[in-house]
Amino acid sequence: MSAPFGRVAVIGLGLIGSSITRAVQAYLPEVHVSGYDKDMAVRSTARALALAEIHDDIATAVAQAECIILAVPPGAMESAACEMAPHIRADAVISDTGSCKASVLAALSRALPDHIIIPAHPVAGTEQSGPEAGFGTLFQNRWCILTPPADTDATQVERLATFWQALGANVEVMDAQHHDLVLAVTSHLPHLIAYTIVGTADDLADVTESEVIKFSAGGFRDFTRIAASDPTMWRDVFLNNRDAVLEMLQRFTEDLTGLQRAIRLGDGEQLYAHFARTRAIRRGIIDQGQDDARPDFGREHN
Amino acid sequence: MSAPFGRVAVIGLGLIGSSITRAVQAYLPEVHVSGYDKDMAVRSTARALALAEIHDDIATAVAQAECIILAVPPGAMESAACEMAPHIRADAVISDTGSCKASVLAALSRALPDHIIIPAHPVAGTEQSGPEAGFGTLFQNRWCILTPPADTDATQVERLATFWQALGANVEVMDAQHHDLVLAVTSHLPHLIAYTIVGTADDLADVTESEVIKFSAGGFRDFTRIAASDPTMWRDVFLNNRDAVLEMLQRFTEDLTGLQRAIRLGDGEQLYAHFARTRAIRRGIIDQGQDDARPDFGREHN
Repeated sequence: MSAPFGRVAVIGLGLIGSSITRAVQAYLPEVHVSGYDKDMAVRSTARALALAEIHDDIATAVAQAECIILAVPPGAMESAACEMAPHIRADAVISDTGSCKASVLAALSRALPDHIIIPAHPVAGTEQSGPEAGFGTLFQNRWCILTPPADTDATQVERLATFWQALGANVEVMDAQHHDLVLAVTSHLPHLIAYTIVGTADDLADVTESEVIKFSAGGFRDFTRIAASDPTMWRDVFLNNRDAVLEMLQRFTEDLTGLQRAIRLGDGEQLYAHFARTRAIRRGIIDQGQDDARPDFGREHN
Repeated sequence: MSAPFGRVAVIGLGLIGSSITRAVQAYLPEVHVSGYDKDMAVRSTARALALAEIHDDIATAVAQAECIILAVPPGAMESAACEMAPHIRADAVISDTGSCKASVLAALSRALPDHIIIPAHPVAGTEQSGPEAGFGTLFQNRWCILTPPADTDATQVERLATFWQALGANVEVMDAQHHDLVLAVTSHLPHLIAYTIVGTADDLADVTESEVIKFSAGGFRDFTRIAASDPTMWRDVFLNNRDAVLEMLQRFTEDLTGLQRAIRLGDGEQLYAHFARTRAIRRGIIDQGQDDARPDFGREHN
């Protein structure tokens, strides 16, 4: 298989962007990667890590690229696209890695009305941020969702799919609205809830922070990992996928209210019935290789 | 250090009970452990695993024990205590491993009014259940909370503390009511929320279960681990720590409503301010050895 693109530019060199550059180095070494980040310190780190050919201006970084991947927060997509617009090849495939897709598609279409735009979302990450946090196996056996507009040339979609598959990802194509609904429940709502409960615990007057930390192994610590994710990115996700998140939040709140009522009334049967049916999804996730099968995520116990 | 008890009985041989027997074998090999579980299949497994001297009746299992640990769901504590009452030594220390303490203390005090009762809660576990799921290092560097009634002989508390320390745990003593408040936020509320969101996702008509599973790496999968915990135990926790759970749930709901409103109004500043302050707790948890410092809990990426 020959590489789908000879030259790729990655704009934004945080966790995801830097993982892409590393994965290309590992799995598509024949592909030339140029990189740019608007933060000078990030560029320095990226140079020191030899993540790609790092440029100090976006114009040079994108100039020859056949594929440009914007790995910046959703709210920064449009300005980055506008900035690079005068410098990109007419036949370049413009993509991204944002966690919400309808708003990104709209933003990129405004900034680059005459280009091939194929938004993408690799559903992968960790709670860490920055160029040092990336690693080349991040996308192995994770899903990357492409959300091309309906009239996109299928050959170009196939090229981008081949690129992500080469980095280890499974690729699925769906429309941007459906993506946003699916991710609202599998990613955005979980993050909102995790951020909320960690804040709630932090605000308690009658339980000290020291106690919250000490006894976090009872379940709370899992939420703190998610709530340690990049705040800028997550602010943008909620601002850019508002309707789907509010819709899922409404359903969640109804369900939580139902369980709250069962607790208040001492309805053990309802609680048991609810708690007993949630194991099947976990089993499916492990069977499909989307989580570590080891107990406790394989955490070390020693 | 000589062992604080020569003979220990463990009643209930699931994840926690079987981990205690294994930890005693590993770290206090001079201590004799007898075991009992009301489920015959569990007893057979426990025998096959050589977890302890397994008895087919609770009377023989507890007869000579200086310390009896009830590792059964909170709702089963009182009946187990009543059943063993005629057979236990007058000087035996009666303890347990339940996740709520005020109700357990009340139940054990009713069943065994003349005995030394020191409730305990090792804040440790995995999402798995049953005697095969246990392991001897489960309590290493985890906290075990003792909640003795105010008039308890300090020497006996010290004995039980020494026992748990020998199994690798750090010990903290507090009153049962405070325990229940602290654990409501660090354990019970997180579980309730996780069970809720997994149920919400399972009920969606416009997102398939297959999609939920595929794209779970965006955060959702973390919740499915917690929501795979033992349903009987968790039903009992919510029935037995109702007031503290409802109180914490109320605060959580208020905070969630505040963030919901910020999303609806597009208030990015409020969202950012909230998301930026939750990293400190994660750092504290890792600094104090209560979670794996590796990104993504050290999950494998390959």
